[in-house]
Amino acid sequence: MKKTLSILGSTGSIGRQTLEVAEHLGYKVCALSANKNIDLLEEQIRRFNPELVAVFDEAAADELRKRIKRDGSSKTRILHGMEGQIEAAGNSGADIIVTAIAGQAGLEPTLAALKTGKRIALANKEPLVCAGETVMKTAKEYGAQIIPVDSEHSAIFQCLDHEASIKKIILTASGGPFRGKTRMELKNITPEDALKHPNWNMGSKITIDSATLMNKGLEVIEAMHLFSVSPDQIEVLIHPESIIHSMIEFADGSTIAQLSNPDMRQPIQYALTYPERKPSLTAPLDLVKLGKLTFSKPDHNTFPCLRLAYTAARKGQTACAALNQANEEAVALFLTGKIGFLEIADRIEKALTEQI
Amino acid sequence: MKKTLSILGSTGSIGRQTLEVAEHLGYKVCALSANKNIDLLEEQIRRFNPELVAVFDEAAADELRKRIKRDGSSKTRILHGMEGQIEAAGNSGADIIVTAIAGQAGLEPTLAALKTGKRIALANKEPLVCAGETVMKTAKEYGAQIIPVDSEHSAIFQCLDHEASIKKIILTASGGPFRGKTRMELKNITPEDALKHPNWNMGSKITIDSATLMNKGLEVIEAMHLFSVSPDQIEVLIHPESIIHSMIEFADGSTIAQLSNPDMRQPIQYALTYPERKPSLTAPLDLVKLGKLTFSKPDHNTFPCLRLAYTAARKGQTACAALNQANEEAVALFLTGKIGFLEIADRIEKALTEQI
Repeated sequence: MKKTLSILGSTGSIGRQTLEVAEHLGYKVCALSANKNIDLLEEQIRRFNPELVAVFDEAAADELRKRIKRDGSSKTRILHGMEGQIEAAGNSGADIIVTAIAGQAGLEPTLAALKTGKRIALANKEPLVCAGETVMKTAKEYGAQIIPVDSEHSAIFQCLDHEASIKKIILTASGGPFRGKTRMELKNITPEDALKHPNWNMGSKITIDSATLMNKGLEVIEAMHLFSVSPDQIEVLIHPESIIHSMIEFADGSTIAQLSNPDMRQPIQYALTYPERKPSLTAPLDLVKLGKLTFSKPDHNTFPCLRLAYTAARKGQTACAALNQANEEAVALFLTGKIGFLEIADRIEKALTEQI
Repeated sequence: MKKTLSILGSTGSIGRQTLEVAEHLGYKVCALSANKNIDLLEEQIRRFNPELVAVFDEAAADELRKRIKRDGSSKTRILHGMEGQIEAAGNSGADIIVTAIAGQAGLEPTLAALKTGKRIALANKEPLVCAGETVMKTAKEYGAQIIPVDSEHSAIFQCLDHEASIKKIILTASGGPFRGKTRMELKNITPEDALKHPNWNMGSKITIDSATLMNKGLEVIEAMHLFSVSPDQIEVLIHPESIIHSMIEFADGSTIAQLSNPDMRQPIQYALTYPERKPSLTAPLDLVKLGKLTFSKPDHNTFPCLRLAYTAARKGQTACAALNQANEEAVALFLTGKIGFLEIADRIEKALTEQI
């Protein structure tokens, strides 16, 4: 069945890849949303001809309206502000809403999407991190189905055994660009250094989060909510090749793992076609060519953000929201050169201590 | 629910481990069968107090009857011959029949077990190899449920996605004790050399089959029948650590794998408790301690048995039966020092050629 999609955050990395997958599957795109990248939005409108487009930035929305009107052939309605995002999330008539907005700005649209009672392909982890209980309660109340898009959570979802409860989730982590470094070596890291991720090509916020391992910490909180487990049932395992995307250990000592080449189009597509699987754009895995998969423990001394996330996860929703808020602010300051790399964790630790 | 078991081949490696698991789970054992190891059978009778015991060898059965009668307290009925095996398989009243007889001698008992319409925990691969079509047809006709016990097939069974068909099965192989050797180096191998398996402690027939890679070849044929795939959908991958027990690749490029420490008690228990999973005797996996998992291609030049099995698999049931027969005979001759290691494959190749 050809489904219709609303893609929130369509100009970001996940949004763009979702459009590739939609085109590959022949799915219709009825709504798009973005912050202000109207050059790309314009291209996407001409290619996918959605009925609704929401631009967060009002001036950018005005400019886009002019460009589209000039053309004359497009019937796309262009909205702005948070109301626009919420409309694209909750009122587009889509069968599946892909939530790929970066950061906690995605919370209100995510809640609006859940209230449709449809399927949510969830790529925006911060709403779960800062309001996990609310998000999961809303999904339950409205009968919405959350299918995770994050490669790790998609892996866990693909490894679930509906007859057996989870003993332990093993969340794999590439370790980011600074794996193996000491704390001192990270003192003078620049944003450019931190933006070079070895395996994944992602947006800047999540790439910095990968470099500090905060991304893995946020994923621990996300997994806790999505799979109803305690933080102590989640173990982080460094796996630099990013081939095993995560695993579940069951009561009987059997572990089920999901593997693929690191390509977000695989988990994106699975969230769209689930429970079916269809031929995808992802190249098949060649373990002979890879030769080996390696594993080690995370270095909590060099990367304190992971430990801080566990602390917040154990404390509850308010602490998780404080952690996430402090992290978003610190990453923004680091990216604009206002603070050093090590100060990201320092600021989060301070925020968590103050919050307690 | 505490189930009752009939264990065919209870004195072999799988049989003994099944009894350990039965004791761990608190399952009742109502029948046992063996070839002639009555010393161990006697111990097992005193420990598990089964209603029925079948000893294939008639003289051994007589001796066991005397020993048991001497005691006076046991109410165990002792049968002999193939009729005894068939009675233990098909008429013990067990909820689950564990078929762990070695070799094609297990065919008739396996068919008798399937005709009960109960669950068969299948550890005896030869009946599938030499009469796969008949076995699967009988299971279907009588509504019997086959749960594989072989670690690879259990892994595949644990990785199944009931909403998606299999694109490819990746059957892992430790590579046996002679991995990395050249054909010439294997010329003067003794049975003692071949009986030293690096990861698994098994019976002598299957250990020699592991050394020649014929065991993997038989598993290819077994998997073809159990999971309704063609030989070309099955790939053998050398994985010396024996941690990933096998994998399934799906249409979307996603691969699901099952991992555990190499311990047959895990797949045995799963075949007994499926679809549930219960705490087992298997130590949990520690990937950090292992550090790495490695993969390579099988060496078809040094190990022609694997190629021969693929040839037979493509030709059909008669060729598979000829392959298996020739292999059983050649392994027996090798174990008694009558032929060299390389002659095992030569004899099988000759049998296959003659059969065509």
